[in-house]
Amino acid sequence: MESRRVWTAALLVIGDEILSGRTQDKNVAQVATWLNVQGIRLAEVRVVPDVTERIADAVNALRSTHDYLFTTGGIGPTHDDITVDAMAVAFGVPVVVHPDAHKMLEDYYRDRPGGLTEARLRMARVPKGAELIDNPSSGAPGVKMGNVYILAGVPSIAASMLDGLTGKLEGGRPVVSVTIGARAAESDVADLLRETERAHPGVGIGSYPFFKDGRYGANFVIRSEDGDMARRVGDALADGLREAGYEPVEGGI
Amino acid sequence: MESRRVWTAALLVIGDEILSGRTQDKNVAQVATWLNVQGIRLAEVRVVPDVTERIADAVNALRSTHDYLFTTGGIGPTHDDITVDAMAVAFGVPVVVHPDAHKMLEDYYRDRPGGLTEARLRMARVPKGAELIDNPSSGAPGVKMGNVYILAGVPSIAASMLDGLTGKLEGGRPVVSVTIGARAAESDVADLLRETERAHPGVGIGSYPFFKDGRYGANFVIRSEDGDMARRVGDALADGLREAGYEPVEGGI
Repeated sequence: MESRRVWTAALLVIGDEILSGRTQDKNVAQVATWLNVQGIRLAEVRVVPDVTERIADAVNALRSTHDYLFTTGGIGPTHDDITVDAMAVAFGVPVVVHPDAHKMLEDYYRDRPGGLTEARLRMARVPKGAELIDNPSSGAPGVKMGNVYILAGVPSIAASMLDGLTGKLEGGRPVVSVTIGARAAESDVADLLRETERAHPGVGIGSYPFFKDGRYGANFVIRSEDGDMARRVGDALADGLREAGYEPVEGGI
Repeated sequence: MESRRVWTAALLVIGDEILSGRTQDKNVAQVATWLNVQGIRLAEVRVVPDVTERIADAVNALRSTHDYLFTTGGIGPTHDDITVDAMAVAFGVPVVVHPDAHKMLEDYYRDRPGGLTEARLRMARVPKGAELIDNPSSGAPGVKMGNVYILAGVPSIAASMLDGLTGKLEGGRPVVSVTIGARAAESDVADLLRETERAHPGVGIGSYPFFKDGRYGANFVIRSEDGDMARRVGDALADGLREAGYEPVEGGI
């Protein structure tokens, strides 16, 4: 069998608001899903507070151990938006105003009240050597520095920046997942799951219990870079569940 | 002014299902909120895959740099539940069956179909030296090892384990937060925010933009261990917003 390179990414969420419990993060799931379509696996997530050294340390730890690093949050116009400054510290470069970003903001704010104020101009600041990431949904662009992609924290704006990056990152094969649900206690099918996984090298089976509509159950997720194989293992597991007296539900419960 | 010790915690989310984007994490927000009531700050979150060495490395990095470490996920009866084994690796101890956990599971499964199978008995395994955390909502207990608290991944079960821990962890003063919302572009009030924060040492102001009901706006969150101070700064910010022509909304938008 051909051995394939696995491409990995990490995500660094910069946000006191996530760590305080005030805001429910939505970027992890959306970045993970998008990455998988690019053939890249999200292999680690960290959430750190809005503190320059904490961000810079995490950036350096993650950019060196993964093919790509994405960050979300902290790139707006206010005093607590320090991602660009922290990134410059991490890379050991100064912060500069990017001429193209400057022009984009000038165009964007030309006919808007207040014009391009000093606060707004903060959004044109990048670590020296950085490129821009298109942002169709507002004036401020994202920033690419080496293998680090700096995205907005607002999920809809982050999504729009990801759209602009679609198909532009080198990756491998996407992981295909097949989900089978059953109203079974995990512990009653643990042996079946273990044996099914063991019989199919290169395939991982995850077991995710739930309590829904007043009853317990679990979803079993088969993951493989080989889609046919994932579907075959899904069929085998469904057969095994049926033999054990459970009704398998394709696609999960 | 009296200098107070700040107690911090980290959270390690163990979960391929979060990294694949399949499942939206709900434990970060719930652990963060619970910790704040205990006077403990959630200072870092990591999400790692179901891989023993990755879990063990993260456990050792986080338990040594924070007062407490919480983990969620990977403590069920199936083959992909490897948190206890990884924890034993991290602490350099063997895995043993905890007699009290064994007894709890015996009682729980006595009158249930199948009884206490080998798979179910997996849930009585702990790193040697660990204590148990009560779990009123199902048979399997959580595990406390040193300063590490091992919780279930299913949010309702994790919540029930947290309930059992309420008031039992030493902490400092909870951080009080006051939220003021306004239909203002962040960039139009950036100076006001910066100056208000600068005028009140020990108080942090976060700015969180949103796009809601077809209009932009932002919520400003004032955080302090001194509740009176947080409210005073909230009033000052509301006055400032009013002077700038915006209608402040107490509690946020």
